[in-house]
Amino acid sequence: MRNLWLCLLLAPLPAIAQEFALMPWPAQVEHRTGQLTFSAPLQPRVDGPASERTTRGLERWSMRLAEKAGPAAMGDSRNGMPVLIRYERVADLRTPDVDGSYALAIDSTGITVQAPTDIGVLHALATLYQCFRRDDAGWGFPSLRITDDPRFTWRGLLIDPCRHFMPLDVILRQLDGMELVKMNVLHLHLTEDQGFRIESKLLPELHEKGSNGQYLSQEDIRKIIREADLRGIRVVPEFDLPGHATSWFASHPELASAPGTYQPDTRYGVLDAVFDPTNEATYALLDRFLGEMAALFPDPYLHIGGDENNGKQWDANPAIQAFMKAHNLPDNHALQAYFNQRLYAILKKHGKRMMGWDEIGDVPAGSAPALPQDVTIQSWRGKEGLVSAAHAGRDAILSNGWYIDLCQSAEFHYLNDPLPPDSPLNAEERKHVLGGEATMWAELVDARNVDTRIWPRAAAVAERLWSPASVKDVPDMYRRMEAVSKQLDAIGLRHKSAQLELLRLMAGSDDVAGLKGLVDVMAPVQGYKRHQLAKHTTHTPLTGLADAAVPDPEGARRSTALIDAFITRRDAATAAALRPVLEATTNAPALPCCGTAADARKVLVNAALAIMDHLLKSTAPDAGACKTFQLALDRAQSPILEAEFADLPAFQRLFAAACTPAK
Amino acid sequence: MRNLWLCLLLAPLPAIAQEFALMPWPAQVEHRTGQLTFSAPLQPRVDGPASERTTRGLERWSMRLAEKAGPAAMGDSRNGMPVLIRYERVADLRTPDVDGSYALAIDSTGITVQAPTDIGVLHALATLYQCFRRDDAGWGFPSLRITDDPRFTWRGLLIDPCRHFMPLDVILRQLDGMELVKMNVLHLHLTEDQGFRIESKLLPELHEKGSNGQYLSQEDIRKIIREADLRGIRVVPEFDLPGHATSWFASHPELASAPGTYQPDTRYGVLDAVFDPTNEATYALLDRFLGEMAALFPDPYLHIGGDENNGKQWDANPAIQAFMKAHNLPDNHALQAYFNQRLYAILKKHGKRMMGWDEIGDVPAGSAPALPQDVTIQSWRGKEGLVSAAHAGRDAILSNGWYIDLCQSAEFHYLNDPLPPDSPLNAEERKHVLGGEATMWAELVDARNVDTRIWPRAAAVAERLWSPASVKDVPDMYRRMEAVSKQLDAIGLRHKSAQLELLRLMAGSDDVAGLKGLVDVMAPVQGYKRHQLAKHTTHTPLTGLADAAVPDPEGARRSTALIDAFITRRDAATAAALRPVLEATTNAPALPCCGTAADARKVLVNAALAIMDHLLKSTAPDAGACKTFQLALDRAQSPILEAEFADLPAFQRLFAAACTPAK
Repeated sequence: MRNLWLCLLLAPLPAIAQEFALMPWPAQVEHRTGQLTFSAPLQPRVDGPASERTTRGLERWSMRLAEKAGPAAMGDSRNGMPVLIRYERVADLRTPDVDGSYALAIDSTGITVQAPTDIGVLHALATLYQCFRRDDAGWGFPSLRITDDPRFTWRGLLIDPCRHFMPLDVILRQLDGMELVKMNVLHLHLTEDQGFRIESKLLPELHEKGSNGQYLSQEDIRKIIREADLRGIRVVPEFDLPGHATSWFASHPELASAPGTYQPDTRYGVLDAVFDPTNEATYALLDRFLGEMAALFPDPYLHIGGDENNGKQWDANPAIQAFMKAHNLPDNHALQAYFNQRLYAILKKHGKRMMGWDEIGDVPAGSAPALPQDVTIQSWRGKEGLVSAAHAGRDAILSNGWYIDLCQSAEFHYLNDPLPPDSPLNAEERKHVLGGEATMWAELVDARNVDTRIWPRAAAVAERLWSPASVKDVPDMYRRMEAVSKQLDAIGLRHKSAQLELLRLMAGSDDVAGLKGLVDVMAPVQGYKRHQLAKHTTHTPLTGLADAAVPDPEGARRSTALIDAFITRRDAATAAALRPVLEATTNAPALPCCGTAADARKVLVNAALAIMDHLLKSTAPDAGACKTFQLALDRAQSPILEAEFADLPAFQRLFAAACTPAK
Repeated sequence: MRNLWLCLLLAPLPAIAQEFALMPWPAQVEHRTGQLTFSAPLQPRVDGPASERTTRGLERWSMRLAEKAGPAAMGDSRNGMPVLIRYERVADLRTPDVDGSYALAIDSTGITVQAPTDIGVLHALATLYQCFRRDDAGWGFPSLRITDDPRFTWRGLLIDPCRHFMPLDVILRQLDGMELVKMNVLHLHLTEDQGFRIESKLLPELHEKGSNGQYLSQEDIRKIIREADLRGIRVVPEFDLPGHATSWFASHPELASAPGTYQPDTRYGVLDAVFDPTNEATYALLDRFLGEMAALFPDPYLHIGGDENNGKQWDANPAIQAFMKAHNLPDNHALQAYFNQRLYAILKKHGKRMMGWDEIGDVPAGSAPALPQDVTIQSWRGKEGLVSAAHAGRDAILSNGWYIDLCQSAEFHYLNDPLPPDSPLNAEERKHVLGGEATMWAELVDARNVDTRIWPRAAAVAERLWSPASVKDVPDMYRRMEAVSKQLDAIGLRHKSAQLELLRLMAGSDDVAGLKGLVDVMAPVQGYKRHQLAKHTTHTPLTGLADAAVPDPEGARRSTALIDAFITRRDAATAAALRPVLEATTNAPALPCCGTAADARKVLVNAALAIMDHLLKSTAPDAGACKTFQLALDRAQSPILEAEFADLPAFQRLFAAACTPAK
């Protein structure tokens, strides 16, 4: 398959043709011959109950097709191509298990969409947008029959407006991206050590003192909920409790477990500030606040966080220790279970289903109130939380493996399956696995570059949650993901623009071709390594090389594929294709932002090119060139400016192939 | 001067250095030797009354400096560079004549800002951001002393969210651009034939039936007003009356001057729908609506439009004709004057000053109520409205010459002066000229590309309204405007990004270098010509060549300067500099969006290059090459896809120089 992809690389489609690419891949696709030619104005015939979702969805769809085809394709046709939309009912997102299935038929006479709900119609329109493409005959659609139905009902994206504030427009445009790849849950993480990002009308001191003026108003939230609903997307709010709570204590220090004054923190990590679960005032305040939020957010679920409480303030507080003894709570897990139980009652009162990170399942047997059966677990530390929740008959969703803030590859996220073939869960237990969420934690992204961390990789997560488990061809995923990345760009997501903006800022110039060549093969270091390499706070500007670089960059996949092809073939043709690709990564100017990376890249590429030249002439290693190559690889192995060469493994394979004597 | 600029072109600064560029140019600038080295964290000392404007302004400023300098420049300095901010009072924008002056001193020991008001402080910070630059010694500020004070108090930008809707984020980010170039009035044109774009709580049918769901909520408006105020910017609302009013009649057809049903119109131009000024229900509704708006918008001014009433519905309505006769109103001007008089009383009651387009001054002497003295005129059809208003002792602002939607050159707008040396106004009358506004009408821009039409040209208008009249060196303006364009890009304006996004959409590819080379020398046709070349409605997608091309493009100035230099010098060195610049404009692929333009450009450039080669060898014309050149020029003379080659006049000069026999 890799070779097939390589052929595509070496022989791209003519500039005028545009392929279509579906992602997530539908449950069933049947290709036919022929095509439907686009003609505007579109006047779809709608057969179904009144639905603003359908009306606005068709408007968006028509506008996007027209924008893509351009004014030249508008012509003066009186009658647009026939589009028939049929659905039975308007879905209510307060019942999360909505039927999102649809059937779609395109032939040369027109388009027919059939769906049980108007959300199925939106799914069909997303597919139809992805089908729209230009070929020699102009703009149109391929003849297809599709029947489609999601594998999981919970296909989420978490956004964290706390570590770095994400204003309304940033969140709204993610909804467009989610709709395109059929994600249906926006999880808003609204309170954190670094900021209290939601307006409270009942307790305005919370956002006023906890947010530095950067928060989402209730009007913003209503707009998000409305626009999300119009796209078939639920909005689940999270208020992280009892830890990750410093910003609450800026206005309510009396509720913390240690005395003192508090400010929203500028540091990251697991901090100490935690609610005092022995103080009745804690529950009184949470009851008021969560009651207000329960009314603001229509979704049945409310997420209480519950993660990463280090317990230090509890350990150090004699009154809390005495309370634990008095209530037979042997450890902090038990005390947190007690706290969760109290929260559970509050949520119940306000008509909400409780949800939390997998720590809320850490209840010591016997010594503390058991976690109620209808609490939903979000499994992040591993898969165990998901498995043990389902074993215990609780619903669960997966986020472990989908922490897209950690800058891992799309392949890694794509192959992460909540229910892999070797899952220990039986058929009944499997029903408790609702789906999962990609989590966009925001310590190291801000409103400017957050799109570059979400897209296009979240599309790979979306496919895993929507498509049949058997759909897992990685090269094909990458081929389609790159096309979807363009679709996302076309509808207004900023992952491509934001990178170029950062490059212009860093270069102080509009001419960033050289810099982009370098950045195209670099990725931010993965995992939590950036925090080890530098002291990051909320004040650190995110305008460095590692911020402009994107995870799993296309450019590095391209160079990797060509290097591997050269290792296999060792022929002049592949070398000729590879050489300019590598050289294009060596033209970055010596800027303060990136000079050391540019130097290291030049040395690496030059060493590789020398080895290639040698390989074309001889099979024996060239000791001198290999020594030089080894030094270049050594230098490139360490992170540079919190980033790394994403194609380095391919260079290492080239070294192994060229510099290890044949056995 | 042009030659000096050319030298700069041929010998650019080293990539590492970044020049600083002030725009608008301050009243007094005194350069000194030395510089102040940037060191973070910035902890400005503030000496003045509590002001959120100052606090947030300093936050924005500090963050932008840090973003520009990048994480590498943050270091671990305990003490940032000293910044002292002193001001006397917090300005109240409800008194428009705010003192915006400031004094600024930068030397190697620190920065001192002194201003009467916190708005003066914001102006100083804008100047300071523009001073921030990198040289061999790193990031810092040049030693300077500046004293500065605006020439006019009304420095406005009109945004039209009606023809194409401009959502909240589009409007909010323009405030950042306005702040950078010290503009201080945002004029929102909120009602039009094509849409009623503001929420009314009292009369919700207005926006519900008049907007297609696309309107600014009152919460949006409050956010705009708040963010504007934090940047020292007033917000003046316009409700266009009695014409340009179709969208009102979607919910209130009974108030139109002709019977029928109405929908927001999709067509542009001067349409017929007009309020019935003889119907008392008109005034009852306007009283309620304008009363609501008067409370929503704190600014003392309220703009009632008043332009382009074609009077056809009035002429055709016998009851209206009878009313005119009965009231001794001889013509439609008189009837509109009557209407305006009624509006004036309504605004007075709600505590607002009336403002309108210059048509409201068209009051026939004697036959109609004279326009009240305290009405402010916005002069757009020519300069006459401004002059006659000031003669009559009324305040006025200028917009004629600043219609930035017409895609004219920055030079044209720059040299447009409300009070030129030959102004017929005396000293007393001149005081009535408050300033002016750039108008961004939105028939042919949408939310995606509107930034490309506003910026950077609005900066030239801003300078005319702020700087001394004597500041009018055009090449120097262009040099600074191009730098300011980068500053605007760095702080989040989308004029550069939006163009690249459109090019990617049009090309269906991320590789748009070839297409950009072509578009860089093209501009949308000027004036109202696009409406003659094609039928534009609100449904026409704005994703064609003319939408991606920008007015007065940098690339065409560059090629023009080099062609003119070659005409003068006729030497190989200039030819060698010019050749690649021209060739870079000929690499666009044959795409449906742009193929005919790409072809015409290739033919033009090839013909010019042939002529250049000939000129280097001989002074006599080459008849064959001249014939080819003439044909290429002829072909390029007509608009192509609603755009044109902005450097065509230079090619024509080259033809004249090379193909006209010496006399």
